[in-house]
Amino acid sequence: MNSSLRDYMPDRADRYFSGGSGQRSVARALFETVAGLPLICPHGHVDPLLFADAAYHFESPAELFLIPDHYVFRMLYSQGVPLEAQGVPMNEGEDNAAVESDHRKIWQTFAENYHLFQGTPTGLWLRDELHDLFGVTEKLTPANAQTVYDTISERLAAPDFTPRNLYEQFRVEALTTTDAATDTLEHHRAIRESDWDGRIYPTFRPDKVVNGIDQPQWNEQIGLLRAVSGVDIVDYPSYISALEQRRDFFRAMGATATDHAAETPFTVLLSPYEAEAIFQRGLAGGASAGDARLFTAHMLVEMARMSGEDGLVMQLHTGSVRNHNSALFRRFGADKGADIPHRLDFTHNLKPLLDRFGAHPSLRLVLFTLDESTSARELAPLAGHYPVLRIGPPWWFYDSINGMRNFFAQVMETAGIYNTVGFNDDTRAFASIPTRHELWRRIACDWLASLLVEGQIDDEDAFAMAHALSYGLAKETYRL
Amino acid sequence: MNSSLRDYMPDRADRYFSGGSGQRSVARALFETVAGLPLICPHGHVDPLLFADAAYHFESPAELFLIPDHYVFRMLYSQGVPLEAQGVPMNEGEDNAAVESDHRKIWQTFAENYHLFQGTPTGLWLRDELHDLFGVTEKLTPANAQTVYDTISERLAAPDFTPRNLYEQFRVEALTTTDAATDTLEHHRAIRESDWDGRIYPTFRPDKVVNGIDQPQWNEQIGLLRAVSGVDIVDYPSYISALEQRRDFFRAMGATATDHAAETPFTVLLSPYEAEAIFQRGLAGGASAGDARLFTAHMLVEMARMSGEDGLVMQLHTGSVRNHNSALFRRFGADKGADIPHRLDFTHNLKPLLDRFGAHPSLRLVLFTLDESTSARELAPLAGHYPVLRIGPPWWFYDSINGMRNFFAQVMETAGIYNTVGFNDDTRAFASIPTRHELWRRIACDWLASLLVEGQIDDEDAFAMAHALSYGLAKETYRL
Amino acid sequence: MNSSLRDYMPDRADRYFSGGSGQRSVARALFETVAGLPLICPHGHVDPLLFADAAYHFESPAELFLIPDHYVFRMLYSQGVPLEAQGVPMNEGEDNAAVESDHRKIWQTFAENYHLFQGTPTGLWLRDELHDLFGVTEKLTPANAQTVYDTISERLAAPDFTPRNLYEQFRVEALTTTDAATDTLEHHRAIRESDWDGRIYPTFRPDKVVNGIDQPQWNEQIGLLRAVSGVDIVDYPSYISALEQRRDFFRAMGATATDHAAETPFTVLLSPYEAEAIFQRGLAGGASAGDARLFTAHMLVEMARMSGEDGLVMQLHTGSVRNHNSALFRRFGADKGADIPHRLDFTHNLKPLLDRFGAHPSLRLVLFTLDESTSARELAPLAGHYPVLRIGPPWWFYDSINGMRNFFAQVMETAGIYNTVGFNDDTRAFASIPTRHELWRRIACDWLASLLVEGQIDDEDAFAMAHALSYGLAKETYRL
Repeated sequence: MNSSLRDYMPDRADRYFSGGSGQRSVARALFETVAGLPLICPHGHVDPLLFADAAYHFESPAELFLIPDHYVFRMLYSQGVPLEAQGVPMNEGEDNAAVESDHRKIWQTFAENYHLFQGTPTGLWLRDELHDLFGVTEKLTPANAQTVYDTISERLAAPDFTPRNLYEQFRVEALTTTDAATDTLEHHRAIRESDWDGRIYPTFRPDKVVNGIDQPQWNEQIGLLRAVSGVDIVDYPSYISALEQRRDFFRAMGATATDHAAETPFTVLLSPYEAEAIFQRGLAGGASAGDARLFTAHMLVEMARMSGEDGLVMQLHTGSVRNHNSALFRRFGADKGADIPHRLDFTHNLKPLLDRFGAHPSLRLVLFTLDESTSARELAPLAGHYPVLRIGPPWWFYDSINGMRNFFAQVMETAGIYNTVGFNDDTRAFASIPTRHELWRRIACDWLASLLVEGQIDDEDAFAMAHALSYGLAKETYRL
Repeated sequence: MNSSLRDYMPDRADRYFSGGSGQRSVARALFETVAGLPLICPHGHVDPLLFADAAYHFESPAELFLIPDHYVFRMLYSQGVPLEAQGVPMNEGEDNAAVESDHRKIWQTFAENYHLFQGTPTGLWLRDELHDLFGVTEKLTPANAQTVYDTISERLAAPDFTPRNLYEQFRVEALTTTDAATDTLEHHRAIRESDWDGRIYPTFRPDKVVNGIDQPQWNEQIGLLRAVSGVDIVDYPSYISALEQRRDFFRAMGATATDHAAETPFTVLLSPYEAEAIFQRGLAGGASAGDARLFTAHMLVEMARMSGEDGLVMQLHTGSVRNHNSALFRRFGADKGADIPHRLDFTHNLKPLLDRFGAHPSLRLVLFTLDESTSARELAPLAGHYPVLRIGPPWWFYDSINGMRNFFAQVMETAGIYNTVGFNDDTRAFASIPTRHELWRRIACDWLASLLVEGQIDDEDAFAMAHALSYGLAKETYRL
Repeated sequence: MNSSLRDYMPDRADRYFSGGSGQRSVARALFETVAGLPLICPHGHVDPLLFADAAYHFESPAELFLIPDHYVFRMLYSQGVPLEAQGVPMNEGEDNAAVESDHRKIWQTFAENYHLFQGTPTGLWLRDELHDLFGVTEKLTPANAQTVYDTISERLAAPDFTPRNLYEQFRVEALTTTDAATDTLEHHRAIRESDWDGRIYPTFRPDKVVNGIDQPQWNEQIGLLRAVSGVDIVDYPSYISALEQRRDFFRAMGATATDHAAETPFTVLLSPYEAEAIFQRGLAGGASAGDARLFTAHMLVEMARMSGEDGLVMQLHTGSVRNHNSALFRRFGADKGADIPHRLDFTHNLKPLLDRFGAHPSLRLVLFTLDESTSARELAPLAGHYPVLRIGPPWWFYDSINGMRNFFAQVMETAGIYNTVGFNDDTRAFASIPTRHELWRRIACDWLASLLVEGQIDDEDAFAMAHALSYGLAKETYRL
């Protein structure tokens, strides 16, 4: 029985293609024309240190694949495996003795729970990365876990297995990191001053000096901003000046974009008096939650104004309720797989921003959503009308086969592909980048193939759209 | 490579069918039985003047295809082509000198941006209409734009290319327009008094004398209603009398339906005292936004009552935030591609209306949505229970291949097809009507074919359902 | 024509499988390995009397298929057939003379409206049940209705056609009922005390003594609780004691789970003082609607605490606005096909409960939704993180082919299958149980086949997942 089912599994070259043999032939032909295109990585979270240090090496398979990856450890956690057993470090001040430090043991625990990833994007990325980058062709099992560990370790230790070499090998054309507004960009400076000509650029992410004006950390962050900018931030205008100065610095360091996260896309334009009043309450430690909500909403409009002026492409990631698991957050901190999406409204929330800048000639605003019900209903009609708007690719839990298929089905009829921006890998896992882009390109070609075999598009359109979705749109949108 | 991909494109006769060859054979066989059925057009926006004037001719390809079509010009606008360059007229009082008047130039601009419509329903309608009605078989390109313009222009100028002749050629059985409550229906009168026997009927749309009681225009509209009805509207009862009188007039002119638009499906039953109080504030120019919301909600219940009494089928189109782009609205007015859907609730909002009239023996209420998440969750369970309810076809941005596929997938399992109403073309573009109905019929047959090849329905059901969805349900629901 | 379409209909053995012949071969091979597995029925509404009475027989085809089935009679009602004509009994005190009592006539009315169920899950269940259980191979028509009635009646009257025999024939391994907290479980006691070893267990459903503290019925229910528990309920602590005592009793009678229904998943943790104050207002008949909302929300947290302590698996069914049709409710009572879903939020609403018990080592909380937009957005990320959470299968209107397909597509990528619970038939129609499980198993295998032919999973995973989804997960989750 098993052997016969295996006959129905596709060649690796055809994986993730759907439909009958005709559609698969079309998808394969389209994919062949884009598989070798360079990678544009306009939004991600790779640590720039990887490229600043010419000799950087990854420590272990567990460090490369597991410990920093909240997609992985949250799944084992959901089935009762504590984060401690997975080697996830606790906050300072917690008793880290309980945290497993034996990376082989962590890897073994993972292998014993590998079935949890059946049919998940994490499972596909891991399998493809193990195959393509480490030559591991067997499925990971509890039995072979240590041998696979050896294979990976050996490869990691090879002198040529450095991020800079991988950058060339992966054919990355440009890669951007995500950096706090107060970051001194020292690693970026080191890269620029080195003899290496990889294009690694920062992205300006001011969330920590904008959001949470009612929290004590906000004042600490303003202190950092004061220090790094040299601007004496005493009021709203000097705060704005400091931000503008930091944007100029980021641009000088190669940045072409900003990034903003908020729980919702709520925007509002406060009067200068209102903005000043909230800002002063923030400085004095007396801002309320309502102040914080208004200030974040107002600053999104200010940031749109700045982007219109300095040309940095503005990205807006909304919809995640961060650190939903309070107990875990207290012990382990942020980004522990407990950021849960919620319902969004863009139509009403973005109106104040769009009333002011919706047709601005040089603003470009890329919207991302974690609420798929907004894609066809709100994002596509908005981006299919307002000149400044573009729709970002499926994000986070939707960076998956179904997420991408839904995206193509929900967005393209109304917005057209040219109001979208191609792919963002959005990852901190540098070594997984080719795998992620390949998945996107395969699903994009699969979608185009379905349109062609239904007579919706012709071959000429299909080739042009495959190129745009794989490469052209990301490069053009992000001004890279 | 290109030549080989072309081998996978279907014959025109099989376009928009999905699945493997078996399913396509079924879809084709089903479609052949409904392709030639007459067209029932129970909801649309064609100007009745086209039929009142026996010799009406369309001015130019740009006037036929582009200038009045907000699906088209909003897409070019979203990519930075101003409405002026597309020949879209501004409001009176604006400087219209900037508006392009050379229709050949407008057409050329369109051709240069034709790729924006790849994979969109607008692209499909245009292609099919050019092919079927004008014999244009090449894809529109910047290079052939003027030759195509010539071909279309020649056909438009032909003596037989009149709306009345097209009506016969298209095999339209009945077509309804949408008309303000204050319309004198002169074109409709001219049609009835002519020797032509085409069935063109008005639809009663009282939005302007109902919605926006807090706006100055509402009082102007009440003035028009007073004049056209001859009723001295001084209070709520005389207002209701005037509306009932207009409904009688519309029925005498052949109307079988009304249409109502609102931002949400909120309904409420005010006491006579409350209704009168709001109405008087409206007349005095002192109604609030809250009054307007309540009054619209209340009038939906009143209109349901009237429909129960006079038999006009009530249609409710909700979910669009109109004129979202304030700056554009000020310069160009309404219907400029800036109506953006938002989240809806039918379950709670319709309860007051349904509590009163949900099982009324002669009321029929057709619900349309722009929020697909309500289709399976709310509309199908509501229409699958309440005798008065029917679900209208996918509307606006959802009048598309995916919109229709989602509709069949989301609505039919719970509501069954007999609680839906077949197709509405809902268009002001008369010449596109056959194309739109054909798309619906093809996708309906494709859906039925998928059910048949999965063993969900048999051949007998499939043929009956194809006929109902293509023709029977629209005719029966709208009492045409 | 008809004969040729029939060629494209699948063999019965392949029904409900999609895709091309390769995928169908895989689906068939997978299904063959699970088709004969025992049925685990961990949530449903079968009357335990069926098993307490060893000689129980169903009265008539109308009583078996139509009169108690709100899926059926609401569809005919939606097309104008009154409930009276379908034999649905009215509330006591209403004039039940109008209710049709001739079961043959009721059956004939149904047959005349059988086309309403084309393409609906109810249509599929009925067809398959008639075929598999009664050997009816013709489609039901007005012409053959009475002959089919005879065939069914004959079978129903057969001495071996008892629920206990069917239980064995269906290969049910365990079946749970749903029982009020105040139920004495006499039928369950009779089953246990009989010589029959079928595993029929109660489920603790305390809704009536929890929800609606502002309604007069609540006090009546508390009276029943007082009587059945022997606890003198005078304050919140004694109320909690009574509930805990009932849970102990249910556990002693074999229960492994509780079930809770609420309009939304709102949870809150009240202080003991607040809980007591609301409780006292409830006892005094003076609680408000706001009190009721808070008390239900608070009691969900209390019930989670109790489940953590006593190990009963907690189920939460939210999202239905019950008895939406007020007039019908007044005449016919609850469960008349007028329960309409509405929009839900789990992310914010469940946080208070999860903050307290989200990582509890012995709590297990199964979430069900009637708002599909929450599946990928909220449920999958929540269950893919919190150890206590599992996602229940598609419910009610979503217990359908599309509902299941959407469920697999929306939930599994983020949650993985091991954070789901397999199938619940959730039915009061005992005789339909095999049909419903078979539909689920077929669609699950069809989904797995699509993953395999796309290279997402291999054959080993596919077989393991098919077994888990068909049998293993339900058994493990519900501790059966």
